[in-house]
Amino acid sequence: MRAERIPPATVARLPVYVQGLSTLAGEGLEVVSSQRLAAAIGIQAPQIRRDLSYLGAFGTPGVGYDVKALLQEVSGSLGLARQWPVAIVGCGHLGSALAAYSGFSEHNFQVVALFDPKPDLVGRRVGDLVILHPDCLPRVARELGIEIAVLATPTVAAQGAADKLVATGITSILNFTPTTLTVPPGVAVRNIDLAVEMQILSFHETFKQVAEIRGQGAPASRRSMGRRPKERVPCD
Amino acid sequence: MRAERIPPATVARLPVYVQGLSTLAGEGLEVVSSQRLAAAIGIQAPQIRRDLSYLGAFGTPGVGYDVKALLQEVSGSLGLARQWPVAIVGCGHLGSALAAYSGFSEHNFQVVALFDPKPDLVGRRVGDLVILHPDCLPRVARELGIEIAVLATPTVAAQGAADKLVATGITSILNFTPTTLTVPPGVAVRNIDLAVEMQILSFHETFKQVAEIRGQGAPASRRSMGRRPKERVPCD
Repeated sequence: MRAERIPPATVARLPVYVQGLSTLAGEGLEVVSSQRLAAAIGIQAPQIRRDLSYLGAFGTPGVGYDVKALLQEVSGSLGLARQWPVAIVGCGHLGSALAAYSGFSEHNFQVVALFDPKPDLVGRRVGDLVILHPDCLPRVARELGIEIAVLATPTVAAQGAADKLVATGITSILNFTPTTLTVPPGVAVRNIDLAVEMQILSFHETFKQVAEIRGQGAPASRRSMGRRPKERVPCD
Repeated sequence: MRAERIPPATVARLPVYVQGLSTLAGEGLEVVSSQRLAAAIGIQAPQIRRDLSYLGAFGTPGVGYDVKALLQEVSGSLGLARQWPVAIVGCGHLGSALAAYSGFSEHNFQVVALFDPKPDLVGRRVGDLVILHPDCLPRVARELGIEIAVLATPTVAAQGAADKLVATGITSILNFTPTTLTVPPGVAVRNIDLAVEMQILSFHETFKQVAEIRGQGAPASRRSMGRRPKERVPCD
């Protein structure tokens, strides 16, 4: 199994396989056909067979895949059998929230260090951690074995912070800034741009409204009124 | 221009066009070729021409696009000329952080209402807002004209909360839970699963490590040592 051969779209589906297989294993299922797995996770059966073949998992023709073995194989490829120490760089509203976000630790990603250069933030406690100056990054990353970092700095500081992360030897960055980061080969970046996501939704709303003005479809507000709030709830 | 005809991948690129065109307009550029725009935003010129043709923008052959007119056209399609009132449902760590996240309001998405059913959260103040019980959702959404909601509930509560949003007439949901939401046609959902993003990065790290064990490539920690922290910075 070689990571270079696996298409990014397949990699992005592997967490879905883990979730689906975990559920099926929890239900006591020992063998699963690609059709049954398809029904459980909403990915087409031929796509499933193609994705899993990249991992060297082919199943038994006419029978299916061994659920536990497949779950172990896919989990292993995602590195889910171990803990991943994670650093957060940029501890404003979003960075601090991500530091406290339980969804990371539930999946074996442990936030172990926080960095921010702002003098009023350095030394401040967030949960069990104290915000450090980014000058500490090389030493702390080395000592704690950090390879994955979350970038939540202001936009203007993003590339500079990414450069520091890369210089420290960090090779995976989850980028919450709108900056398109320039990184050397071998460094993986995943981008989450919340403003872009919102704009895709406002595109949807804009055209729905244009359609309404043209008289196609009912106005959203009239589709369903919802129930009135109970008197006991103060809404103001 | 009909929204139904525009491919989702094109819609996802429109915010990038807005950002690039804004920069070029700020530099005083009046006309831009697709080649120049391509260099500025990192999207291939033929793709740019195809994307923009969906919006009815064709440019002048051999000359290019009028920067201001194109910016207005693309911004208009994304609904960026107006304010969008947004509700956040689920006010734990992540929801509260998103309520305070300045990146939304900078792009005309104004968080105007917060909802959470937990008795110890209802009535609590987050910034300028007070957390309301979801029973208030229909009335508040109607009064404030909310069409877009951010879903940041615990996983088990996600589908129920989404059902309430849809029943209230909300037609766009930014879903931060790992739940695959079931919504009726006409409701747009964008999913941000932070655990999946991290697992894609740990996949990258896992295979890099396998490659290292096999002796291909230098260990990440030896690639670059980074500078030592200055003595004045306390890192512990």
